[in-house]
Amino acid sequence: MSRPILIDCDPGTDDAIALWLALGSPELDLQLVTVSGGNAGLDRTLANASAILSLAGSEVPVVPGADRPLMGRFTGDVRVHAADGLAGVPLPRGRPPAPGLAADAIRTALRGAGPEELTLIGIAPATNLALALATEPALASRVREIVLMTGAWGEGNWTPAAEFNAASDPEALSVLLMAGVPVTLVTLELTAQALVTPERISAIRARGGGACLRAACDILATTPPSRRLGGAGHPLHDPCAIAWLVAPALFSTRPAAVLVEGGSGPGRGRTHVDRWGRTSADPNAAVAETLDADGFFALLGERLARLP
Amino acid sequence: MSRPILIDCDPGTDDAIALWLALGSPELDLQLVTVSGGNAGLDRTLANASAILSLAGSEVPVVPGADRPLMGRFTGDVRVHAADGLAGVPLPRGRPPAPGLAADAIRTALRGAGPEELTLIGIAPATNLALALATEPALASRVREIVLMTGAWGEGNWTPAAEFNAASDPEALSVLLMAGVPVTLVTLELTAQALVTPERISAIRARGGGACLRAACDILATTPPSRRLGGAGHPLHDPCAIAWLVAPALFSTRPAAVLVEGGSGPGRGRTHVDRWGRTSADPNAAVAETLDADGFFALLGERLARLP
Amino acid sequence: MSRPILIDCDPGTDDAIALWLALGSPELDLQLVTVSGGNAGLDRTLANASAILSLAGSEVPVVPGADRPLMGRFTGDVRVHAADGLAGVPLPRGRPPAPGLAADAIRTALRGAGPEELTLIGIAPATNLALALATEPALASRVREIVLMTGAWGEGNWTPAAEFNAASDPEALSVLLMAGVPVTLVTLELTAQALVTPERISAIRARGGGACLRAACDILATTPPSRRLGGAGHPLHDPCAIAWLVAPALFSTRPAAVLVEGGSGPGRGRTHVDRWGRTSADPNAAVAETLDADGFFALLGERLARLP
Amino acid sequence: MSRPILIDCDPGTDDAIALWLALGSPELDLQLVTVSGGNAGLDRTLANASAILSLAGSEVPVVPGADRPLMGRFTGDVRVHAADGLAGVPLPRGRPPAPGLAADAIRTALRGAGPEELTLIGIAPATNLALALATEPALASRVREIVLMTGAWGEGNWTPAAEFNAASDPEALSVLLMAGVPVTLVTLELTAQALVTPERISAIRARGGGACLRAACDILATTPPSRRLGGAGHPLHDPCAIAWLVAPALFSTRPAAVLVEGGSGPGRGRTHVDRWGRTSADPNAAVAETLDADGFFALLGERLARLP
Repeated sequence: MSRPILIDCDPGTDDAIALWLALGSPELDLQLVTVSGGNAGLDRTLANASAILSLAGSEVPVVPGADRPLMGRFTGDVRVHAADGLAGVPLPRGRPPAPGLAADAIRTALRGAGPEELTLIGIAPATNLALALATEPALASRVREIVLMTGAWGEGNWTPAAEFNAASDPEALSVLLMAGVPVTLVTLELTAQALVTPERISAIRARGGGACLRAACDILATTPPSRRLGGAGHPLHDPCAIAWLVAPALFSTRPAAVLVEGGSGPGRGRTHVDRWGRTSADPNAAVAETLDADGFFALLGERLARLP
Repeated sequence: MSRPILIDCDPGTDDAIALWLALGSPELDLQLVTVSGGNAGLDRTLANASAILSLAGSEVPVVPGADRPLMGRFTGDVRVHAADGLAGVPLPRGRPPAPGLAADAIRTALRGAGPEELTLIGIAPATNLALALATEPALASRVREIVLMTGAWGEGNWTPAAEFNAASDPEALSVLLMAGVPVTLVTLELTAQALVTPERISAIRARGGGACLRAACDILATTPPSRRLGGAGHPLHDPCAIAWLVAPALFSTRPAAVLVEGGSGPGRGRTHVDRWGRTSADPNAAVAETLDADGFFALLGERLARLP
Repeated sequence: MSRPILIDCDPGTDDAIALWLALGSPELDLQLVTVSGGNAGLDRTLANASAILSLAGSEVPVVPGADRPLMGRFTGDVRVHAADGLAGVPLPRGRPPAPGLAADAIRTALRGAGPEELTLIGIAPATNLALALATEPALASRVREIVLMTGAWGEGNWTPAAEFNAASDPEALSVLLMAGVPVTLVTLELTAQALVTPERISAIRARGGGACLRAACDILATTPPSRRLGGAGHPLHDPCAIAWLVAPALFSTRPAAVLVEGGSGPGRGRTHVDRWGRTSADPNAAVAETLDADGFFALLGERLARLP
Repeated sequence: MSRPILIDCDPGTDDAIALWLALGSPELDLQLVTVSGGNAGLDRTLANASAILSLAGSEVPVVPGADRPLMGRFTGDVRVHAADGLAGVPLPRGRPPAPGLAADAIRTALRGAGPEELTLIGIAPATNLALALATEPALASRVREIVLMTGAWGEGNWTPAAEFNAASDPEALSVLLMAGVPVTLVTLELTAQALVTPERISAIRARGGGACLRAACDILATTPPSRRLGGAGHPLHDPCAIAWLVAPALFSTRPAAVLVEGGSGPGRGRTHVDRWGRTSADPNAAVAETLDADGFFALLGERLARLP
């Protein structure tokens, strides 16, 4: 039986791959896609999300959400995702977005779900999910699990202290970590194991497949190797959060107390991940620690090949 | 023509007086009361809000909201408001609350308003108002002004750094200060000028009036003089925010850049109020600086006397 | 019997008055003056300290110290003290400074003192005193008391959060508060009661006296009334710390837990003064709360009149 | 020609190895050893330092310093170093310490040095070095370089955010980074490459050598593999700072802006290392990034074998 999920995203190159991985995976039943700004402005991420779903033949509703974090404003990561948010890879225009607002649509989905039924996947700044659960905390009872691509226990990729999604809305991430539901974090240390290389792209492309697989490979080919990771490849962040739900055996996790730094100092957005019990705080999340990278890319290729 | 207003409150002894002052003032057209936890738990503040309105014969809808701040939890101020939130002064049970949630009701009210039409009054932790405007930022265009009893440029009354409402949800207060609408802050320094004394209570009581005036005087009589203010009386916080709208001539204000401290340090919830242009930040609020206290208490008595 | 004291200063207009008040007070036995930057650059504050002492006929050694705080750098307050640090009031050049460095001279003085014998007065950024006690913590046993003009429990005068001396070296101030010796803080709230007015200057001038009294009056006359204090006069900060030792009956104090905010946020340098037991911290200082201002200015005039 | 150096340490198991590596290396001319608390209380670290030097036949003066950081107090790391600071490996008692205090001895050494002549090595909390340079900033001109084992750009080993030395006195570390002299940081990421394994200990032991080599091997054998590093061995922190001076060819470095987090939040003591130019700050340190671990352990064994 497939697991009902909702994805909150800001496509974003790796968001596109993540959405296709979800749509190609029968283990998951994607019921709603909500969109925030982040990797690009909300107008772009919304259009991208629609285009990504339409290319896969999906009619899942796409609902626009936050064009700003709880405080301040988003600063899109044009260095990675380009001004169009998809690294310049053109997709046909998708269906128009559904009416309404993301936080409301998330709440409606949760109200319609049974106890601990719906899995929330966040691969964007946490604003939309946080607004939903902060406005109506009782809906936490309908959440089975929240899986987030965010944070780092070590060096950040946006500031020296913070990963991009966490840095974009640290207060919203705190809200989710305090919501009283199981949270799994896929951090930069995990995604650093999912390195995209020319060989891995070639292996995926060699599967044939349709327009989605070809666009995915085109997108994967645009990002240069990461200096931070020594040039061996670039990390494929968001799809790891999907893969965790599809094939948890590829991962190991560890419970940890995670505290998000707020305030206005240099540590803003840092996720203090207490993996070794050095503080007195109780674990409030599972952090994904290790990934079978070859298994992950094999899964990714196999699932992309199922799509139109 | 009376000004349409909405009050977000957590009654709370001074909230009760504030609501009655608003209901007794024809300059104001109270359209909605939303409630959060704060001075007491949400169950109590909600029941209190209904009772306060019913005693005044008002049928304005009362809608429950936040039972926790954006992060963490409320810690009711039983030292001032007692466990029942009304200092032990019994009121007849009020009408049942309206269905729905505060943030949604605020958004509905704003959607139904014209441009810059509705005035939002916050005399509680800022959670409900912040959730409404953060979820649907476009509604800021319908707001004429936000008036908040919160903050201090000097010593706090909840921690050495922070006033109770600001300390209860500093992130929510930041959201309001960044919402792009005019904000007026009524801080502890202003309310320290509105000292309740036995003489002032007697003067109000001498006006006669009905059940509301008598209950108001009973409530006012319960709070002991403030050590912080040297024992001359106790400060009547929330009604000052209402009075500012009814009789602005009783006040002087100053534009200032106000920054709310977040994070987890000892300054959490402090409002850094730059009254003297010492930082490079542009003013984002008007802070009320001086009050004609005799005029304020005369107004209060006169308006309470109009109520049933 | 007069009390042996040491003054660490950064003259600075009010430092000049404070030094003269100390020299004119037989209750105090000034044994050493150390100097830091602060109100002006160290070159100026050092020359000023020498000139101030020489004008009074004192041969107390003047030793140069910190030209920077523990971290970062000083930013002189030219708005109040002018580029020369004495508001443009010329004094004859003083004797050359003594050799050595302030922190060393303080340590030497403490080593030569008996148990709990020497009183340290700080009317500058706390750098010199902190370096002495941090380098040789055992010398705390020789300290009778530390009296500091610094901090505020309310609004700052340098930033919205912080008083000038505390803002200039918050880490040094923390060192002193943790040194395990009795500390008395004379904060902005106390000095706001010591308002210099034309009448008070006239009363001092009318005493006659010598060059010191005349220079003191000239200096007092240069500073305009404080906007922050509503224009009633300007606060005479540093001499209050001396007066506390000379005539404690003019003051009331209160024990309080004082925590200095470090870090890099907007609260940097704020002294969180827990006057009302709102935190779990034990008192680590006495804060001066009330001043008999008329008594203070009478004392000041009387002592200035004794000087050459 | 050998390079004159001074070592500030808190032995500490890895401090012992570092001191022996320095004494066994003719490239370095160890002129002074100063001691602070840290890995154990000052009494223990002082006795240990003397014993370590005496075992090697060294008569370099050992001077006691800080028994506390600039603020607060040290909390010895008994988990790694045991109560005796040397993991229970007994050494013969050493010569008595030299008179005086560490910060003074450092200043005296610097005053006796020529311009940019003396290299300062810090493998302890930075308190002693910071007190010396903060008290007499002009002595920075005598410093050739400061090499510190401290900090991390990623996960801490003492808190989730901070490495032990940096966490023990973040303010002192900031002082050194602002002192205007070249600073090289050997962080946890570098020392994680210097993994002690049974094979490496055996290889050192097989060299024969004297009491120092044997004691070093005994000490190395006490520490269990690091969970944090996956159990492959335990990181040999402090000797890396010595090796950087002896054999820089074993290392690569990168310039970076390093900012130490102060304050009282969860990030206290974190070193924000901007390796990728993500902030606007100019580089103020070189951070060692890669180590030839086999070369390092070969050097270590070879130099230990030279000692008595």
